[in-house]
Amino acid sequence: MTARLFEGERTIDTIPVGHRGIAYGDGVFESMRVHDGRVPWWPRHARRLADGAARLHLPLPDHEFLEAQVAAMASGREAGVLKLVLSRGGGARGYAPEPDAVPCWQLSIHPSPQAPATGLQLRWCATRLAIQPLLAGLKHCNRLEQVMAREEWRQPGTLHADADEGLMRDTEGHVVCAVSANLFVLRDGRWSTPRVDRCGVAGVCREWALEALEATQARLTPGDVEVADAVFLCNAVRGILPVARLGARTWDAHRAVADARRRLAAAHPAFPWTARS
Amino acid sequence: MTARLFEGERTIDTIPVGHRGIAYGDGVFESMRVHDGRVPWWPRHARRLADGAARLHLPLPDHEFLEAQVAAMASGREAGVLKLVLSRGGGARGYAPEPDAVPCWQLSIHPSPQAPATGLQLRWCATRLAIQPLLAGLKHCNRLEQVMAREEWRQPGTLHADADEGLMRDTEGHVVCAVSANLFVLRDGRWSTPRVDRCGVAGVCREWALEALEATQARLTPGDVEVADAVFLCNAVRGILPVARLGARTWDAHRAVADARRRLAAAHPAFPWTARS
Repeated sequence: MTARLFEGERTIDTIPVGHRGIAYGDGVFESMRVHDGRVPWWPRHARRLADGAARLHLPLPDHEFLEAQVAAMASGREAGVLKLVLSRGGGARGYAPEPDAVPCWQLSIHPSPQAPATGLQLRWCATRLAIQPLLAGLKHCNRLEQVMAREEWRQPGTLHADADEGLMRDTEGHVVCAVSANLFVLRDGRWSTPRVDRCGVAGVCREWALEALEATQARLTPGDVEVADAVFLCNAVRGILPVARLGARTWDAHRAVADARRRLAAAHPAFPWTARS
Repeated sequence: MTARLFEGERTIDTIPVGHRGIAYGDGVFESMRVHDGRVPWWPRHARRLADGAARLHLPLPDHEFLEAQVAAMASGREAGVLKLVLSRGGGARGYAPEPDAVPCWQLSIHPSPQAPATGLQLRWCATRLAIQPLLAGLKHCNRLEQVMAREEWRQPGTLHADADEGLMRDTEGHVVCAVSANLFVLRDGRWSTPRVDRCGVAGVCREWALEALEATQARLTPGDVEVADAVFLCNAVRGILPVARLGARTWDAHRAVADARRRLAAAHPAFPWTARS
């Protein structure tokens, strides 16, 4: 992993002790697809980063400096994932944020995930998402729920231990998302995706798909997913991933999913579409 | 701040990039009172640390090594706060925990907080605690709710900007705790404290007070707090803190609170009791 660390607009060599990321998960992050030396969706990521920082009152580094560092990190790389973590920085012990905190942030490059050869196999997670409108939609760094959910099917012998992803419900039973992706379901020719106003992440690919597919945001029950005509997951790193199975329910390839992927390929060069894919 | 960093049973010089604390708040912590070169409540803290690690499937360093490092850090210090943060350590990008992760942990020493000269002034926080039984009771590192709550009254001009602490309710309206302390209320000669089975932290001083005062755990409404005959906050760093005001409601010093403090003084040498205090 290649990584660089910053405090405000200054490169630093080591992560400071007392970092509020470690103490409280006091930050936000972005996982971005690198393609041909660039980050094609950088404007969307930058906007979400700024929105998240504004809602949490996190300080942001200078925008031009940040953008130049992101560009430098992506430059010369054919493909990969660029992760940005923005934290509030150090400070005294205790929850109170320093009013003049200097942001502590890091960029790191990771390998691209393997594109799945077939449709995804999903399972239902037992771990539920708490309802917290103040954090809903944000890609913040309080992610123990996702860590616990993802761990559910790493144990050998677990039901659906070979699953590619898991669907998560909130504590009231509504379907929200997969552990690391958003969910879209097709019914009678119309796409919909769960609202993220009470929990869940407003994903960058979700935002694109909402517009491109004229999808609606809705409260979905597990039953709504199971009766869907087609289902896909999406995120900014992996694009659109067709779903082939959820527990006992299976779906054949659907032309509306292929169509969505073709449009994504036109919008984002890292996700090319072929008739086979 | 004096600090030491460890990976398993090895001292390290710098916090590794890719630290899951920064990425996800994937850890637990303890804030411990140092007195006369020792940590008097170490057995209680060690037990809670082990319980938290077990619930989150976090790896723990060797117990004797950990204990020796805590003792070494406290040794020779008359007073202070010793903070321990235990994180899952590094790993690849993504939520899935490494099954053989080596814990990354840190110890740091901080000044003792000033003991308040008078009873505390409290306010109600607007920030609510999400209901998440899987994390309830744990002193985990997903603390954005507390950061937001504590920030509420740092802005000049805020209502009760001079408050010492804020009381937090869950999203259903039940009273849970203060931002950095547990809450006890007296009614008709009996102490009670909110349950922490749906959110909130099972504090080490709370555990002591539950036993010593034969207190009950209950779901409390804001009205239950306002009609209480006496109220105190407590945590392992500050001991028992009498409450003098909550919004418009005031309380005079109460002999049951003085009695609780006298018993705490007998149990923990860092919290001496005097008739004036």
